[in-house]
Amino acid sequence: MRIGMVGLGRMGANMVRRLLRGGHEVVAFDNSAQAVKALAEEGAKGANTLADLVNGLSSPRVVWIMVPASVVDPVIAQLRPLLKQGDVIIDGGNSNYHDDIRRAEELQSAGIHYVDVGTSGGVLGLEQGFSLMIGGEKAVVAAIEPIFASLSPGGKMPEKKGSSAPADGQAGMGYLHCGPVGAGHFVKMVHNGIEYGIMAAYAEGLNILKHADAGLQTREADAETAPLANPKFFQYNLDIAAISEVWRHGSIISSRLLDLTAAALAKSPKLEEFGGRVSDSGEGRWTVQAAIDIGVPANVLTAALYSRFESRGRAEYADKLLSAMRLGFGGHHEKKE
Amino acid sequence: MRIGMVGLGRMGANMVRRLLRGGHEVVAFDNSAQAVKALAEEGAKGANTLADLVNGLSSPRVVWIMVPASVVDPVIAQLRPLLKQGDVIIDGGNSNYHDDIRRAEELQSAGIHYVDVGTSGGVLGLEQGFSLMIGGEKAVVAAIEPIFASLSPGGKMPEKKGSSAPADGQAGMGYLHCGPVGAGHFVKMVHNGIEYGIMAAYAEGLNILKHADAGLQTREADAETAPLANPKFFQYNLDIAAISEVWRHGSIISSRLLDLTAAALAKSPKLEEFGGRVSDSGEGRWTVQAAIDIGVPANVLTAALYSRFESRGRAEYADKLLSAMRLGFGGHHEKKE
Amino acid sequence: MRIGMVGLGRMGANMVRRLLRGGHEVVAFDNSAQAVKALAEEGAKGANTLADLVNGLSSPRVVWIMVPASVVDPVIAQLRPLLKQGDVIIDGGNSNYHDDIRRAEELQSAGIHYVDVGTSGGVLGLEQGFSLMIGGEKAVVAAIEPIFASLSPGGKMPEKKGSSAPADGQAGMGYLHCGPVGAGHFVKMVHNGIEYGIMAAYAEGLNILKHADAGLQTREADAETAPLANPKFFQYNLDIAAISEVWRHGSIISSRLLDLTAAALAKSPKLEEFGGRVSDSGEGRWTVQAAIDIGVPANVLTAALYSRFESRGRAEYADKLLSAMRLGFGGHHEKKE
Amino acid sequence: MRIGMVGLGRMGANMVRRLLRGGHEVVAFDNSAQAVKALAEEGAKGANTLADLVNGLSSPRVVWIMVPASVVDPVIAQLRPLLKQGDVIIDGGNSNYHDDIRRAEELQSAGIHYVDVGTSGGVLGLEQGFSLMIGGEKAVVAAIEPIFASLSPGGKMPEKKGSSAPADGQAGMGYLHCGPVGAGHFVKMVHNGIEYGIMAAYAEGLNILKHADAGLQTREADAETAPLANPKFFQYNLDIAAISEVWRHGSIISSRLLDLTAAALAKSPKLEEFGGRVSDSGEGRWTVQAAIDIGVPANVLTAALYSRFESRGRAEYADKLLSAMRLGFGGHHEKKE
Repeated sequence: MRIGMVGLGRMGANMVRRLLRGGHEVVAFDNSAQAVKALAEEGAKGANTLADLVNGLSSPRVVWIMVPASVVDPVIAQLRPLLKQGDVIIDGGNSNYHDDIRRAEELQSAGIHYVDVGTSGGVLGLEQGFSLMIGGEKAVVAAIEPIFASLSPGGKMPEKKGSSAPADGQAGMGYLHCGPVGAGHFVKMVHNGIEYGIMAAYAEGLNILKHADAGLQTREADAETAPLANPKFFQYNLDIAAISEVWRHGSIISSRLLDLTAAALAKSPKLEEFGGRVSDSGEGRWTVQAAIDIGVPANVLTAALYSRFESRGRAEYADKLLSAMRLGFGGHHEKKE
Repeated sequence: MRIGMVGLGRMGANMVRRLLRGGHEVVAFDNSAQAVKALAEEGAKGANTLADLVNGLSSPRVVWIMVPASVVDPVIAQLRPLLKQGDVIIDGGNSNYHDDIRRAEELQSAGIHYVDVGTSGGVLGLEQGFSLMIGGEKAVVAAIEPIFASLSPGGKMPEKKGSSAPADGQAGMGYLHCGPVGAGHFVKMVHNGIEYGIMAAYAEGLNILKHADAGLQTREADAETAPLANPKFFQYNLDIAAISEVWRHGSIISSRLLDLTAAALAKSPKLEEFGGRVSDSGEGRWTVQAAIDIGVPANVLTAALYSRFESRGRAEYADKLLSAMRLGFGGHHEKKE
Repeated sequence: MRIGMVGLGRMGANMVRRLLRGGHEVVAFDNSAQAVKALAEEGAKGANTLADLVNGLSSPRVVWIMVPASVVDPVIAQLRPLLKQGDVIIDGGNSNYHDDIRRAEELQSAGIHYVDVGTSGGVLGLEQGFSLMIGGEKAVVAAIEPIFASLSPGGKMPEKKGSSAPADGQAGMGYLHCGPVGAGHFVKMVHNGIEYGIMAAYAEGLNILKHADAGLQTREADAETAPLANPKFFQYNLDIAAISEVWRHGSIISSRLLDLTAAALAKSPKLEEFGGRVSDSGEGRWTVQAAIDIGVPANVLTAALYSRFESRGRAEYADKLLSAMRLGFGGHHEKKE
Repeated sequence: MRIGMVGLGRMGANMVRRLLRGGHEVVAFDNSAQAVKALAEEGAKGANTLADLVNGLSSPRVVWIMVPASVVDPVIAQLRPLLKQGDVIIDGGNSNYHDDIRRAEELQSAGIHYVDVGTSGGVLGLEQGFSLMIGGEKAVVAAIEPIFASLSPGGKMPEKKGSSAPADGQAGMGYLHCGPVGAGHFVKMVHNGIEYGIMAAYAEGLNILKHADAGLQTREADAETAPLANPKFFQYNLDIAAISEVWRHGSIISSRLLDLTAAALAKSPKLEEFGGRVSDSGEGRWTVQAAIDIGVPANVLTAALYSRFESRGRAEYADKLLSAMRLGFGGHHEKKE
């Protein structure tokens, strides 16, 4: 197929490369002429403007947008007058699915189809393929399936361990038409919410292991802080990097995120280069807000989200209030540790 | 009655004063001669040694220990040879109830009775009376009931709002024989666990109010952090001190801890003198560990406990791990806010 | 002052009564003619239609709406053509503050002012006064202050315990102009969020006390469920009703919600008439979603909210998934307890 | 090497088989003669009694115990008189590491060495190898390393994705000497705590996806329960089984637990055969209690644990209290959904 790609950042560029390898023709545009040039050298057809890009396609034109979520609407506004009835816009970024629903409605009057694609795979996607969660009209999605098949891991995936189920069909290839417009980003949103939870599970567990030496530390006894009840049970200096590595081999908690954790610890066992201010980029928040909208408990996913807020000092005023109350009822003066 | 008091710190001294006002004779001992002298001037009989204190009592001797939890065992070790069969030791501090059970067993062979009393009331207890949760043998507790009646708020309490139930009996006076040895400190332990939860509820809520001006702040947009979705909904500069005050008057969430919060904010609206390192002194931990032992969920009490750990930087390594993982899968570099 | 009251349910009717006692003239309307008649007999001027109600007022007309949140917009739509520039609509119910902001904008073109009032006090408000959190334009709120002064507890409140701060001013009376439109319901929203947290703190703590007899129960040992590690530490049959009562007297965790808890337990120690399906009516959800919008952690308030979702069986599918995973990796068959 | 295996259940039997494949001689004992016979037919040397088993070994004898945690102490008590100085007892089950420390002390006087091994791998371990976390004296562990090498996945593991670190050494083989006695089960304990967290992350996320059809449901509006704010955002009937499958292919959250989840859903998309009563078998509890002992927050792991308690109805009394409070302050009658 022939497809236009708008946005040649880390993700967009790798997608272009994977599409080219899949035998597709890609017209590529980015605000950075250098980015366009680089991919043109790898086989894409470079475009200097959005109009250029659209002109390079044939009807029905298919344009994949791979830009920061806040830039999607402006790009669509520019594309819209260049497109015609029957053309397709794909948003492959991290949009809120509410925006998908609105955009599809807005484009409907012009007969332009809108498809939302949640994409997972990160920097490894180029070699291993991306996992694609797709929302949109049935016929529209079906028509561009070859694109998804090439971007996804396809048939090269490992067999399904511990399952008698066949891994064929779309899902077994690594892409899935989840439902109508918005469904792709909805599923991707929850996917990222789960990712927060899994990351936090490892982080909390390894943090406990890290402090298994508490009984070896000397700590001043005082009335303000509970002493370590049984120092003899916390006499372990554990090698966190080695532990994260051993779990990769045969353990029930082996995973791709554990692979990354082990790799990070192998490179930097003490993680000194990190300050521990953990960002969150939207999907985790939306997941929890959706859970609350529909009245479904999400204790783990929410705790994972809040730990990121806390890592950035957002509980500070609450903590001061607690110290103030303690002073009020018990005369407890705050302790400087 | 006549009673001995060991430990004349903030709590012990106020208890002696309240007992004296109740018409009891109190023999008072502390390692600080000055503390003993001060209370002797207020009507107590000062004792220079534990032996002195015991000699000042008549059989069966009743000794109330009001010292830090870590010192209770040494004090009992010193008292034991001075006491006789039928005498009573009361631990009114914040012991773990496990220790109560052990101590009662140890003292049983000498015929010495052990009573555990959980005490709430803080610095206001002198004027308003203490709430007492008592564990021990039925007859032993009954014999020293006049002591509890004087320490507790007694008949001076406010009527039970919104209730048709009479406020008479022990509980309505402010003291309760909860059960066998350990029951007093067990109930006090959970009392403090609840206290953590209530404190955190206020602190979290007021922290949200504090940040209701988020839409008035300018924040640099970037791909790493979710932007504020709707700045127009967060345009409030709220007066937290006034809000905590208004809730004290007629609101369903009025409480003694809210009184303290409002008082603290009236005195220091910005709480600048606090760093927000919140201590925890044992009962909150034991409450959660007991809940887990018996398989009962305690999400709120545990979250309150963990927020104190977090306020002291105990999640730091976990947070660094999260940043390291984010760098690994997405090339996200940690943002310095 | 003269004021119109639309909605004579439990809350609205009690407000009318309190306003009448405060010497105000109240024109009262409800869809139920009986409700109108009842209050007319108590001194209000009954109105048979909204037009009637508006006609009974003098300019600038002040209309207080006290109806379910979902009915506020229809009532405003009916009122709007009846009102004139300078008139005031007060929403005293539990609206989402987003709706306040929208409504104020919509009414602005007609010169009608909009004031939002969050009200706490429940069924006790008639006798003890309501705690009022107010949002709106400064001059508008000031002009109707006598209404707020009469509804609030006023000077009859208890002194501020443990505080040197004076309890005078608006907040000390029990009402507070919190900020521009929406601020009243925003503060009330968080107030209710805190209420969820406090309620859950008591409920969790008392649940632990309830199960302090775990060591007295016999439980079949099996490989699927962790056995009770130390039965000897859980041998207490505690009187939960008496414990909630004793805490009311002198304890640091005494509160109005504890008063209600003790009253409920005095009436029904085993709570057999309840099934434990806990409703939530919006504010708790909005509080958490606001916290997430502004990136502030709210672990306790959220846990309290989720425990209500769980009480209504909303985790069922998640729980089934967990059992399915356990069967998958360990051959663990689900245990019927 | 030659080794004795006590306990031929699912795990023990598979370990024997894997050891036999590795060329070791295994003397196998179980209370079930049939279990012994079955493995004898596969090449093990069957033992009818523990004495038989010990006699079948040569000094220093190495005995691996693979029995339920509650039976380990009785088995050791029987073995002890049969063993001699220099012999080694390995506990490969799920003991609490506190018990390891105690047992090693008890056996020390007899010169018997104690090694604790946490084992992960479940029913897939036979083919893929087990991940082994080992605690004990350095020389003792080193002497029996061939056993660990055979049980672990060894060199047959997949390469370390996304890492430049070599996967060689013990950890890269799938076994690790973590530290002194108890360290193996300590690390395994936290491993299982993490497992709880990851499982809950998937379960919560998939539960949200399951309820993405909330806007398609009709729900009676009432004042007790918050209505769905925006039904148009929840119009998705998602295929949970297909979604869990697509994530296995290229997604950042692919993992062994996801493999199991997808397999379970492929087999039973609605999970009707499960009631959702999720057991917990100890390690999750101990992990959280250890975190609290050392003052480290573990919000996610704890929430995962509590959700299991809740699935078994352990919040019931707390929920009834909440309904009772709601009735008390607001006249809210519990709703039967």
